[in-house]
Amino acid sequence: MSGPYAELRDRVLEANLEIVRAGLVVLTFGNASAADRNAGLVAIKPSGVRYDELAADEIVVLDLESGAVVAGEARPSSDTPTHLVLYRAFAAVGGVVHTHSPYATAWAQAGRELPCFGTTHADHFDGLVPVTRRLEPAEIAGDYERLTGEAIVETFARLELDPLDRPAALVAGHGPFAWGADAAEAVENAVALEVVAASAFRTELLRPDAEPIDADLRRRHFRRKHGETAYYGQDG
Amino acid sequence: MSGPYAELRDRVLEANLEIVRAGLVVLTFGNASAADRNAGLVAIKPSGVRYDELAADEIVVLDLESGAVVAGEARPSSDTPTHLVLYRAFAAVGGVVHTHSPYATAWAQAGRELPCFGTTHADHFDGLVPVTRRLEPAEIAGDYERLTGEAIVETFARLELDPLDRPAALVAGHGPFAWGADAAEAVENAVALEVVAASAFRTELLRPDAEPIDADLRRRHFRRKHGETAYYGQDG
Amino acid sequence: MSGPYAELRDRVLEANLEIVRAGLVVLTFGNASAADRNAGLVAIKPSGVRYDELAADEIVVLDLESGAVVAGEARPSSDTPTHLVLYRAFAAVGGVVHTHSPYATAWAQAGRELPCFGTTHADHFDGLVPVTRRLEPAEIAGDYERLTGEAIVETFARLELDPLDRPAALVAGHGPFAWGADAAEAVENAVALEVVAASAFRTELLRPDAEPIDADLRRRHFRRKHGETAYYGQDG
Amino acid sequence: MSGPYAELRDRVLEANLEIVRAGLVVLTFGNASAADRNAGLVAIKPSGVRYDELAADEIVVLDLESGAVVAGEARPSSDTPTHLVLYRAFAAVGGVVHTHSPYATAWAQAGRELPCFGTTHADHFDGLVPVTRRLEPAEIAGDYERLTGEAIVETFARLELDPLDRPAALVAGHGPFAWGADAAEAVENAVALEVVAASAFRTELLRPDAEPIDADLRRRHFRRKHGETAYYGQDG
Repeated sequence: MSGPYAELRDRVLEANLEIVRAGLVVLTFGNASAADRNAGLVAIKPSGVRYDELAADEIVVLDLESGAVVAGEARPSSDTPTHLVLYRAFAAVGGVVHTHSPYATAWAQAGRELPCFGTTHADHFDGLVPVTRRLEPAEIAGDYERLTGEAIVETFARLELDPLDRPAALVAGHGPFAWGADAAEAVENAVALEVVAASAFRTELLRPDAEPIDADLRRRHFRRKHGETAYYGQDG
Repeated sequence: MSGPYAELRDRVLEANLEIVRAGLVVLTFGNASAADRNAGLVAIKPSGVRYDELAADEIVVLDLESGAVVAGEARPSSDTPTHLVLYRAFAAVGGVVHTHSPYATAWAQAGRELPCFGTTHADHFDGLVPVTRRLEPAEIAGDYERLTGEAIVETFARLELDPLDRPAALVAGHGPFAWGADAAEAVENAVALEVVAASAFRTELLRPDAEPIDADLRRRHFRRKHGETAYYGQDG
Repeated sequence: MSGPYAELRDRVLEANLEIVRAGLVVLTFGNASAADRNAGLVAIKPSGVRYDELAADEIVVLDLESGAVVAGEARPSSDTPTHLVLYRAFAAVGGVVHTHSPYATAWAQAGRELPCFGTTHADHFDGLVPVTRRLEPAEIAGDYERLTGEAIVETFARLELDPLDRPAALVAGHGPFAWGADAAEAVENAVALEVVAASAFRTELLRPDAEPIDADLRRRHFRRKHGETAYYGQDG
Repeated sequence: MSGPYAELRDRVLEANLEIVRAGLVVLTFGNASAADRNAGLVAIKPSGVRYDELAADEIVVLDLESGAVVAGEARPSSDTPTHLVLYRAFAAVGGVVHTHSPYATAWAQAGRELPCFGTTHADHFDGLVPVTRRLEPAEIAGDYERLTGEAIVETFARLELDPLDRPAALVAGHGPFAWGADAAEAVENAVALEVVAASAFRTELLRPDAEPIDADLRRRHFRRKHGETAYYGQDG
């Protein structure tokens, strides 16, 4: 598209279409957003719109701090307050994806953190993917979507996790949020999360007492792809 | 198509094709119908016809009360009496879908109601999806398809459920029926039912003592999408 | 195609392609055949040929009684002797399909008969789908493929089953064979077998003590689609 | 392509695309290579390149003994040292495939060898597919990818297995490697491994005390497709 915020909206449209192509989304259960940190903006999918009808100029642009709509006619995703909390708390995050993808949602519904059973997991997440506590009745009755985000932030603070080393969380009784340095990385992490959630499910059925891989192996794989010591891919 | 009942038949054709595209139907195991309440009519798929050969003018139109065929050369779906019972008992229902979709059928075969383990479920069903009792030999020998419908209606009466708050039922040893205010909503609920049946299956394998989510969270999600307090999507 | 046995070969080609399209076959694990009872012939897929390269004139035509090749340059499927035994023993059978489809194979590998847990099963199989005994070392060392067929026939004789009421068998440690009055019906039964094998697998995981449906319900469904009392579909 | 090593690179490109088409690879989790034994060369996928953007002239060509890059601008797959170890130790191997395919990875993460539960398995692997020990911290800190290959070779030596009779291994906590006489056969074995890993998973859930098939049956099936006594397919 052309017009205001064209590049940001195109990126967000592409991320939303990619989570559908990757099979993470059924019906309208999912949304992706991206931040433009310099401009102080976040762009996100409109609420309840079918993916096959989604156009770039329907992507809603909001002020990152106030949450006020800056551009777009449509109502933003009802999960917008969760995305905004994540952008405000995690300064290095440039893209957020929320899905109800099949296996990650099953772990979230079981209220269980996702153990790191192998190198596929370690290639993307430097350890377990945490699960939030369940929200209290007062929180559910109140500013529910914002407090969902706060529950994720609180979990990362309590466990002292770096959001880019562990770019996803499972919201208990709900489903996964994933993120990354930009929207494309957030999508990739949401895809990887679903793959490893499925794999961990099968691993436990084959071996109920399965143990996470050693921290050495986990860090070797994560560091092979991330940070200064990376030697995977064509960069660096 | 043009001709008599064109709009109603087109809608029913579309709903039948959509349950195939959504992967809910294998071979000819499934059928969708819609009611025109003002005209007192129901339109439904013909029996045993392959979906790839189905045309709008083959959709059978019947009188809602008497069940007499009003238009269409073909024999209506053998499950037609079940659909008619549901339309007569549930006045707000405008579309009904029956499938043998993989996971919902497994719960029905296990004779188990589907617990509400998460918000994906709560977005569509305001609590557990009930399972009927098994039919008695005399019922099976008698007007079997009609009595299948009666078993669903009886279950909703016994549990005091509102059909649009809980737009589906599992028939024990058989499979799911879903419905909605119109045919498109019935299809969406049939798709959602399969998604949450799969998710609940995996949740139980990950945590055999999994508990349903709190009623507060469940109602918050259901009300976010349905009724006067809805704030999901672009309407209202 | 034109040429000798064109119609028979076309039918067998189509059945082989259909089991691939239905997702029952991976690599070259599967084969379909059809009989022309009047001509005393059976046509079958050549051995180990990729499905995407298969042409009608490569379909091998054999004498039903002697097994001698009547037409076709290629070596017939290595499972041909199994097919021939089934045609000779089951006079009403006009098509046979062998696959290693995922869930039916798992039941066969577990050495377990497939219970009738629901109406989807009963629509195609009037009761459990039997599993053969394991073959003896002397049988494996001998005329293995023929004796695989004999093990199926022996199972049907021992349990006094009618091959068209129960158009499939699981060969222990191997996989499923399905059949029907013609090749298209054999394919349909192979598809239905895989669907109900998957469904029964999930039913048992949801309820380890799951019981088969009552014989009344089972027969009602089977008879709704088969035989003189059928009222499903547009025939009869 | 034309140019240096065109045929070898085309073959490796095709093998890499085939593992994606077969559904074995998600994101960039996988790589295929081939050896030209006469020229003393190995060609392999570049590291971290998306499959939909992969071109033949990006395939990296290395010296089999020294591992030095002979042609190609890109950095070779980070798993290259594992591939090289396998080519050096297993003289009959001409193609190697590494994936994180869903079910084979679950067995690897569970640290379990894959039992031979049926003839689908025996058609490709003449007995169980072994699992390596877990690597020691010093190995992970050191020449990790090379030592992963050594762990596979050590496992085959300890169990006295022939690499072409058993053309795959599961690396504990990681995933599968498969191989064959050439790259196409390695791909076929990787596909077969995933199929039988899924099948064995379901077999165990249906029967926790499931036993491998008899050695007679296993050998009969393997020998039907491999070696001098083969009578499957159109060769020999």
